[in-house]
Amino acid sequence: MFNIALLGAGRIGQVHAVNIAAHKETNLYAVVDPNPTNATALAERYHTKVKTVDEVMNDPAVHAVLIASATDTHADLIELAAKHGKAIFCEKPVHLDIARVRDCLTVVKQQNVPLFVGFNRRYDPQFRRVKTLAGEGNIGKPESLLIISRDPSPPPAEYVRVSGGMFRDMTIHDFDMARFIMGEEPVSVFAQGSNLVDPAIGEAGDIDTAFIVLKFASGAMATIVNSRRSGYGYDQRLELHGAKGVLSAGNIRENVVEQWTDDGCLVAKPEYFFLQRYHAAYAAEWQHFVDVLNGLTKPECSGLDGERALNLADKAFESLAQGKEVAV
Amino acid sequence: MFNIALLGAGRIGQVHAVNIAAHKETNLYAVVDPNPTNATALAERYHTKVKTVDEVMNDPAVHAVLIASATDTHADLIELAAKHGKAIFCEKPVHLDIARVRDCLTVVKQQNVPLFVGFNRRYDPQFRRVKTLAGEGNIGKPESLLIISRDPSPPPAEYVRVSGGMFRDMTIHDFDMARFIMGEEPVSVFAQGSNLVDPAIGEAGDIDTAFIVLKFASGAMATIVNSRRSGYGYDQRLELHGAKGVLSAGNIRENVVEQWTDDGCLVAKPEYFFLQRYHAAYAAEWQHFVDVLNGLTKPECSGLDGERALNLADKAFESLAQGKEVAV
Amino acid sequence: MFNIALLGAGRIGQVHAVNIAAHKETNLYAVVDPNPTNATALAERYHTKVKTVDEVMNDPAVHAVLIASATDTHADLIELAAKHGKAIFCEKPVHLDIARVRDCLTVVKQQNVPLFVGFNRRYDPQFRRVKTLAGEGNIGKPESLLIISRDPSPPPAEYVRVSGGMFRDMTIHDFDMARFIMGEEPVSVFAQGSNLVDPAIGEAGDIDTAFIVLKFASGAMATIVNSRRSGYGYDQRLELHGAKGVLSAGNIRENVVEQWTDDGCLVAKPEYFFLQRYHAAYAAEWQHFVDVLNGLTKPECSGLDGERALNLADKAFESLAQGKEVAV
Amino acid sequence: MFNIALLGAGRIGQVHAVNIAAHKETNLYAVVDPNPTNATALAERYHTKVKTVDEVMNDPAVHAVLIASATDTHADLIELAAKHGKAIFCEKPVHLDIARVRDCLTVVKQQNVPLFVGFNRRYDPQFRRVKTLAGEGNIGKPESLLIISRDPSPPPAEYVRVSGGMFRDMTIHDFDMARFIMGEEPVSVFAQGSNLVDPAIGEAGDIDTAFIVLKFASGAMATIVNSRRSGYGYDQRLELHGAKGVLSAGNIRENVVEQWTDDGCLVAKPEYFFLQRYHAAYAAEWQHFVDVLNGLTKPECSGLDGERALNLADKAFESLAQGKEVAV
Repeated sequence: MFNIALLGAGRIGQVHAVNIAAHKETNLYAVVDPNPTNATALAERYHTKVKTVDEVMNDPAVHAVLIASATDTHADLIELAAKHGKAIFCEKPVHLDIARVRDCLTVVKQQNVPLFVGFNRRYDPQFRRVKTLAGEGNIGKPESLLIISRDPSPPPAEYVRVSGGMFRDMTIHDFDMARFIMGEEPVSVFAQGSNLVDPAIGEAGDIDTAFIVLKFASGAMATIVNSRRSGYGYDQRLELHGAKGVLSAGNIRENVVEQWTDDGCLVAKPEYFFLQRYHAAYAAEWQHFVDVLNGLTKPECSGLDGERALNLADKAFESLAQGKEVAV
Repeated sequence: MFNIALLGAGRIGQVHAVNIAAHKETNLYAVVDPNPTNATALAERYHTKVKTVDEVMNDPAVHAVLIASATDTHADLIELAAKHGKAIFCEKPVHLDIARVRDCLTVVKQQNVPLFVGFNRRYDPQFRRVKTLAGEGNIGKPESLLIISRDPSPPPAEYVRVSGGMFRDMTIHDFDMARFIMGEEPVSVFAQGSNLVDPAIGEAGDIDTAFIVLKFASGAMATIVNSRRSGYGYDQRLELHGAKGVLSAGNIRENVVEQWTDDGCLVAKPEYFFLQRYHAAYAAEWQHFVDVLNGLTKPECSGLDGERALNLADKAFESLAQGKEVAV
Repeated sequence: MFNIALLGAGRIGQVHAVNIAAHKETNLYAVVDPNPTNATALAERYHTKVKTVDEVMNDPAVHAVLIASATDTHADLIELAAKHGKAIFCEKPVHLDIARVRDCLTVVKQQNVPLFVGFNRRYDPQFRRVKTLAGEGNIGKPESLLIISRDPSPPPAEYVRVSGGMFRDMTIHDFDMARFIMGEEPVSVFAQGSNLVDPAIGEAGDIDTAFIVLKFASGAMATIVNSRRSGYGYDQRLELHGAKGVLSAGNIRENVVEQWTDDGCLVAKPEYFFLQRYHAAYAAEWQHFVDVLNGLTKPECSGLDGERALNLADKAFESLAQGKEVAV
Repeated sequence: MFNIALLGAGRIGQVHAVNIAAHKETNLYAVVDPNPTNATALAERYHTKVKTVDEVMNDPAVHAVLIASATDTHADLIELAAKHGKAIFCEKPVHLDIARVRDCLTVVKQQNVPLFVGFNRRYDPQFRRVKTLAGEGNIGKPESLLIISRDPSPPPAEYVRVSGGMFRDMTIHDFDMARFIMGEEPVSVFAQGSNLVDPAIGEAGDIDTAFIVLKFASGAMATIVNSRRSGYGYDQRLELHGAKGVLSAGNIRENVVEQWTDDGCLVAKPEYFFLQRYHAAYAAEWQHFVDVLNGLTKPECSGLDGERALNLADKAFESLAQGKEVAV
């Protein structure tokens, strides 16, 4: 049984708490949060204790930390945990500044602790199945990938202001997915974007609608279609085209009931947002981290993956500013 | 080039006129209809002549007649055409009275002319594909068949009164389809029905909603689900279950556009009614009849098929009246 | 927190153990099973104790029993629990003999304890949504219901021999579903069946393929399509047709990935069997029972529902033997 | 009745011949083709005459010409027909060289004859329905368009060499579709492409796989996904995303039969290629041209549309060469 200290009792912390508590081999040992109300509520719900960062770092009973705190605390907490020899599960991103990411990863490397960066979508059973079937050669050599990723509704402008911008906050998942599915590194990035959804996002200096084109060394390509607002739930799809066909992973609908009337046939929308859509992914991701704790595997999604996805986001902003393709 | 005399210039006659005129090997030679307005309009449209029954029967240039006139004239016209040595394409049914059907078929047999009875659905590419794939063994030995057949909206009660009743007028297509798909004869019929759609249909002595169960000698079964009103277009589906799986032929929708919004995903209804849904079937059926005219094949759907489907309709009414299964 | 004694540690007992343990308001207090290996394994997994029937019945700390033991023990255990004042959750059926069911329900009534009979499919979110949307009038007055229910593969003949026959063992769920969706009682039953899947089932005196037609007092009808073997997973669908359209609940597929190649488009099968397909239903069913324990509601699915579904199964066998419709 | 001279009796000429002959208001008056075998075969099939270019141009009975000859003859034939006062239906493109296109359109303008350029996909009922529903405001203001267009298999390298390159030969349809659906002009183009399908295409100096991003003045964007080989038939889809949802037009499958077995559910591929997929579009396009002949409307898809689509193709090649976005 591994004792886990959860750093961050907000929305995403609560998602992970469920899986930590439900897993046979992990114990939600302590909850840490600067907001005592959040911390206490979560701790009570899982019959565990509220502690401070110092307490959990210095407690030899803690095997691992799960960092689900504010983004700007991730790198510091990773370094602290690494120095205390804890295994680390960190929500993406490591940091919004790539130089800070690199420094942080150097510390992790020196301390030689496992660091898993939570790109949850890699554990979605649908997307993983696409990768598996492609790996089995079902569609021949991959040639082009299409990722469609639209949030149900835009975040408030205040959030946008501290988010690092759409490419670092939202598209970063798609950059990681493109690398994961294609199994090779992009050599160039082109990005085009607009502010169409909410003028406040534009005023905050960001875009809310984007198309990105990635090219890989093999000549294969990927395109990412992003919007901060779908109008119909969380749109999360991908299609991988190869020499012999296509593998596509569509949306999961809220239910399978069809209503046929004179107006046509009405079926349900995609599941609302990431908590619903990636429910299975969060559990599978946690199982992977438990395998890491058991020494069965290395983190499949490492600090380097975090760094590379962020680098693509940086290059995408560069491309957007310059109106040209940027080498990676 | 075969010269065809079309007997009946109403709705179904017009359907056939298109195919007769469009086929490279057939010529719409003459149109016959007691209603001169209908006859003239159709003849003008296809640059052909209006003639009388006697004229076309006695004209040696006429190779074949297509009988699309009122139901109660079918048997008489078949006999007349047979006696004049014409090949015959007759819309279903031969007659609503099975004794009359048998007498008529005796005449046809004596005259040794080909008689094709137009159960158009056998030529629907979807249903035929189910039969073909099943015949290739894709789902193992057929065990049960489900036919769903619902009209978009009920006929007027005046029509119902002369229709022979739902089983003879509407279900007769499904009885033929069951025989066609299963490739064996039913040994018993059970029918249950209600008058739910329009009270006027009940007052006319008929039902408008029915479930029928057929059992075949092999132990295989079929069920037919009927309604005179779907509420969402023409519902024409079937599913054949065998030892290794299912083959299903669903509806063909009016278009493939999907509209995803906050209300869900809206797609189009099934095509409205038989003229749309069985458009391809009517053309394929005509090609089959041309093959018969060319001596390449015998009528796949013969007078005997018409008789047997009608017999099942008669037995279904008997079952409905008695509340028990009736042997065929 | 309600203390629950689980009677039966086999497959279905394990399904319920998960939900009892996961629910915030219930505690898996004790496990009872004549097979000590099963009992111990389950108790260890959930950190609880193995006890005897007598111990749990006489323990005032036990609020409720969940009966998931062998079918022929259900009625005795219900009576025993009722006499000890326990709330009762019993897997279907109460008993295979309807007279025994009635006696048992009399005891329950005398003791005035809540008895919930576990027709799990009523809690499937898909089927429930059909009922809800129909209840909101979306398709007008219900006229006909089609239930397709096929198991992935047939049970062994030894099981068939003690199962009460297909109608009491398998179709009983569909009889309950027909009553649940239609919201009225059937007035007649017709059943037709065959032994097509496995000769050993026939030798055991049972059928494995069946069509059943139910008629309701309003004139509405239902048909049930059953097979002990689908060839493609667990086929669990229903369609409710009303005056203005259809509501259909299709299968839930194992995944949503599509593979398009020169062979066509391949998508996943329905989920394998009831543990997968009704995963959500078992959790929702348990929530309902907790609501009963909290006094918020009466058992929605009661002993009377169990009796009525069994009665329909009895009448279906009568119809099958007599070749005619049987009044209920 | 309008007399039509068909210039070009090859594959696409044959497609148009069917519609010219079948339309009530048009007569296939003459066939012209440098290959006498083709010309004669087509003329015999439709009971019409083989003539020369000069004959049809100088024949006052000819109301209109349909130019379906080799691409490099289009501009010359358009000018000739214009000077003879014929209405003109020309297959895309007018010419592969944009300067030649402009000169040609000047002549057409001077002669004041109607010129329709055959971007057949605008008449596809699916895509048109997307435009119509969007125009009705069903999804709010259009924000992004995704066009997926893949041919079933690549053309021979010899064809590629004279085709003008993929953007002028294949993508030109998608450029036109983007302008048609969005109803505004692109202000910039970015193109990325690879030679992945057939090395011979690369040796011929072309690509076979491409992603294109268009930006419009309103900030809306479009992306085009192209491949010369799908592996699964003709992949022709589009999705228009607006402020309130998405409208998508998927592929039309060869049939609607589903085969469910232990391997999963197998459904049919998309229709094979343009003759099948755009069958209805060719007929609708011809109806539009007849409306033009009747003076009911102007050509909806004019020489200017041909010029603009070609200009986008030119800019796309420029972008590909320079690795940056190019202003239009």
